Amino acid sequence: MLHPLKHHIERITPISDQEFEYILSHFTPKKFRKHQFLVQEGNAVPNDFFVVSGLVKASFTNDEQKEHILQFAMEDWWVCDYQAYFNQVNATLNVDCLEDTEVLCLSLVNREKLCADLHKIEHFFRRKSNFGYIALQQRILSLMNNDAKERYQQLLKQHPSLFQRVPKTLIASYLGVSRETLSRLSAQ
Amino acid sequence: MLHPLKHHIERITPISDQEFEYILSHFTPKKFRKHQFLVQEGNAVPNDFFVVSGLVKASFTNDEQKEHILQFAMEDWWVCDYQAYFNQVNATLNVDCLEDTEVLCLSLVNREKLCADLHKIEHFFRRKSNFGYIALQQRILSLMNNDAKERYQQLLKQHPSLFQRVPKTLIASYLGVSRETLSRLSAQ
Repeated sequence: MLHPLKHHIERITPISDQEFEYILSHFTPKKFRKHQFLVQEGNAVPNDFFVVSGLVKASFTNDEQKEHILQFAMEDWWVCDYQAYFNQVNATLNVDCLEDTEVLCLSLVNREKLCADLHKIEHFFRRKSNFGYIALQQRILSLMNNDAKERYQQLLKQHPSLFQRVPKTLIASYLGVSRETLSRLSAQ
Repeated sequence: MLHPLKHHIERITPISDQEFEYILSHFTPKKFRKHQFLVQEGNAVPNDFFVVSGLVKASFTNDEQKEHILQFAMEDWWVCDYQAYFNQVNATLNVDCLEDTEVLCLSLVNREKLCADLHKIEHFFRRKSNFGYIALQQRILSLMNNDAKERYQQLLKQHPSLFQRVPKTLIASYLGVSRETLSRLSAQ
């Protein structure tokens, strides 16, 4: 069976089995239980995470203990506190598991080494980052321009499986609406 | 005098004069007058833009003709409708000049050619995209969590020169607040 990471990389650039072995040797597999933290606010963030199976959320909790969800991540998605990871400062976000989760961890040193050694991996990460940038721009426009109903419908269209796997309260937090508003929308 | 683009690239990776000549040959210089459009909604987006001098804004105008400003760009910044540029679809954003502006245009074909030819340029663009991704994540958190006053103070701290060069109405649109709210904040 094709390794999910190989499959994922090859959606952008073909790699040989030998290259993939070399790439994979820079990752560390790790298993987390539901409710465990991959990244915890205030701690160092040595690794970026490629999700092999499971579901996590990345969120910011403000001084009033209100949680804002920045991102969900499931199979084939990457998740981290990127500001902390790339700048090697302590986390301001939490990343925790909504399901038992298996990830592949990539340290910043290994990421930079891989990118320097293999031009096509640098290419892969550039393209991934471009896609991510575009997705965030769309999210900003959506936050500025769309009402709760439009944001709900957009998310449902883009990621229907999230609605099967994520509690409604958390979907509401991601959309920046109240649990009551979400119930009203999902009943329509 | 050091070319602004060379200076800009060398903040991430050193390049020789010869390499820079080669890189620069993939860009086309262009001048725009205040109020002219670099990108216009509904049109193709062949180029990304590196701003050599001047000031532009990238914005989305909704069906009610309300304008949401996604980004300002001045000297040393890149600006485009990236969703349209990278996916080669028509623009949903406008990019227009708030001052007379000189840019260097980079087509997608030339960008990909440069990245394929010169590993260090692929590295440069990957790092730039990573920084951009982080900045957008911070902006999303700010939109979700901060009130108008906090967003105003954050922008003032990060980019004080914008307040000298950009009309207040446009700053208000970027922050997602009314012109009146902004006047109240800036008077404090």
